[in-house]
This record gives sequence, structure tokens and C-alpha cells, in this order.
Amino acid sequence: MPRTSSARERLIDRACQLVHTRSYAATSVEDLCLAAGVQKGSFYHFFTAKQELMLAAIDRQWATARAEILEPAFSPDLPPPERFSRFFRLAAARQRGELVRGCPFGNLAAEVGTLEPSIRKRVDEVFDGYLGYFEAALSDAANAGMLDPADVKVTAAVVLASFQGALLLAKTRNDPTLIEQVGDQVMRLLAGRQSVTQASSFAPSRRRPSQ
Amino acid sequence: MPRTSSARERLIDRACQLVHTRSYAATSVEDLCLAAGVQKGSFYHFFTAKQELMLAAIDRQWATARAEILEPAFSPDLPPPERFSRFFRLAAARQRGELVRGCPFGNLAAEVGTLEPSIRKRVDEVFDGYLGYFEAALSDAANAGMLDPADVKVTAAVVLASFQGALLLAKTRNDPTLIEQVGDQVMRLLAGRQSVTQASSFAPSRRRPSQ
Repeated sequence: MPRTSSARERLIDRACQLVHTRSYAATSVEDLCLAAGVQKGSFYHFFTAKQELMLAAIDRQWATARAEILEPAFSPDLPPPERFSRFFRLAAARQRGELVRGCPFGNLAAEVGTLEPSIRKRVDEVFDGYLGYFEAALSDAANAGMLDPADVKVTAAVVLASFQGALLLAKTRNDPTLIEQVGDQVMRLLAGRQSVTQASSFAPSRRRPSQ
Repeated sequence: MPRTSSARERLIDRACQLVHTRSYAATSVEDLCLAAGVQKGSFYHFFTAKQELMLAAIDRQWATARAEILEPAFSPDLPPPERFSRFFRLAAARQRGELVRGCPFGNLAAEVGTLEPSIRKRVDEVFDGYLGYFEAALSDAANAGMLDPADVKVTAAVVLASFQGALLLAKTRNDPTLIEQVGDQVMRLLAGRQSVTQASSFAPSRRRPSQ
């Protein structure tokens, strides 16, 4: 750790690392203080509870995800499909290591989504952030005639679901290669998308019973 | 609870319910004993630890998922696309309630995937079970000319990722409608799939750097 980092910064940093590697419940305030070299009294000087530290950690992880994955991948200079391809590859690269840890945001929502509303809501905001990148790229694709503009929002949601699911399956299988594979396939499915009206034989016979 | 259910059965049943509603870590052996009306000494007569009970609970939940979602949805009498459509609708219906709880299997993998290898592996086996249903339906689709037979396995993985991601997003947003929406869109994307060769403009310019 850099000597200049403050106790508060170290606590946030260790929360990002420990919770991602283990889980929210398996990371105690004691664990965090020990890892950060901070007295427990100091912890409560900075944060009212572990949950408040976690919100700060989510913000930190979101800044990291933007800087290291989303901004490099979703460069307007790249063709839209290449942006998604790069996104999945960069995300997969970050999962290599002894154990696939999955998505720090998705893990939290799955673990404490029903227990900690403030964490669930913060993760939801992060997911909205992902959707913003996806929708911008898909809007560019729509402007280039690759996609029906009416489908931008729902397609972005499907890509986010596929991405989160791919990270979860990779963690379950402890094999990150699945992430790139799903990314490739999502791109192939999107590639076929524009011809959807020509390909009705695999279309569901009923779309939704309520419609 | 039925009077005839044994203490062991009641513990498994309560583990399914409590862990799905809260989390694995937030459900203690004491909680489980109290909910099941079982003495703690009896707990350890049946199970060496909470983790062993959880493996039995996963098996129970998998039997339930097969009986209530997978078998009714993946009837060979239905056209393959309709099977997937029904699957997503049945899964969405089970998420309605005060709080969206997400997938019991995906939640566990996300929460303790790096901490409890035996639970992670059991969930992986359950996911293989889902893939079996998906691959059978997609093979039927391939036999009917709706899909390239070479794409069956990877398409099944994409559907499972989309499904798991949809349940996770629904839990994060506390809104189950997303599950049916993602199901609809996955079906639409699959519908466009067969025309993939006619639609190259959204195809990634490079598939995978290693190839």
C-alpha cells in the first residue's frame, strides 16, 4: 500500500478486494481493519457500519470498471460491434487468476439483494451505468442501420443479462473462457437480429400471453 | 408443516426457504433449527454441518425446478421456441412476491462460489442439468432446420447465461418483469440467428484474438 493513502482509503480498497474474493458476510469489520492496518475505533470514525463502507467500495469499483473496461471498450472511434467484443474480452481478462471471482456488483446483489436495500439500490445504479454505455453503442449501431432504434433499450438489457450471467457461470464453473464465448455468441445473435423479419420459423408462436 | 415430515425433511425444507429469502451466511444453524422445530443436537445427528444440509437443499430445489418449471416447459410436444418461452414465463411467475429472490442456485454460486467448493460444484451440476434441457430443445430446433447443429451447445450456454443474468437483474431491480422481457428478446435473437450469414454488418470484425 502507498504510504500516503489514508486509513479511510485503505479501508475502501481492502473492502473492494476482500468482499470480491470472499463475500460480504464473510468479510467482517475486524477483517477489514486488520487488512487495512486500522484500529477498530478509527473504522467507526469513518463509517457508521460495514454497509456504509460497502457503498463507498461499490463507488470505487464502479470508477475502476469505467476506467479499465468500459471507457477503453466503448470508444466512439470503434465500430459498435467491436466495442462489445472488446468489452467482453477485457472483462474476461480480469477474471483470470486462481479463482474466478465473478462480478463484484452482481455478487453483492445476489448475496444481499433481499437483506440490504441500500446496497441493492447502489448496484442497480451501477447496472444503469453499464446500460448507458451499451445503449450509446447500440444507438450508434441503429444510426448505422444495424438495429431497429426501437430495440436499443431492450437489447442493452439482454446484453447486460448475458454479461452478468456469463460472469456467474464462469464463477460457478471456475472457468473464465465462458465469458468470451458468451460475448462472441451474443455478437453473433445480434448480427442475425436485423434479419429477424426474414426468419420467423424460430419465432415463438405466442409472444406474451398478456398481449 | 405436515405432521408426518421428519426432522431431517423439515430442515431441508427450511434451508431451501430461508437461504433463498435471505442468504447462506445470514441463515445460521440456530435459525434453521428454530424454523424446523428441531433441537440443535438433532441437527448434527442428520448433518455434519450447515454446508452438508445445503447440498441436500440444492438437490431438493433442483427436483422442484425440474418438476415445476423444466418438465412442464420442455415438453417434446411443444415447438422448441415455445418451450423456451414457457420456461421464461414459468420462471418469472415464481419470482413474484414481496421481494424478488432471484435464482436459488445462482445466488449460492455468487455468494459462496469462492468459499465453498462443494456448493459451487453442486450448483455447476444443476446448471449442467438446465443445459441438458436447453440442448435437447435446441437439437430439436436444429433437426427442424431452425439452427445449425454445430451451434446447439454454445447457444444453450448463452440462453442459460441470459436466464441467470435476467434473474439477477430482476433481483437487483426488485422487478420480475425483466425476466419475461429478456426471455422474449432471447427468442427474437434466436429467431434472427439462422440468417446470420445474411447479416454481416453487425458481425464483429475480429472474432477472438487467439484464433
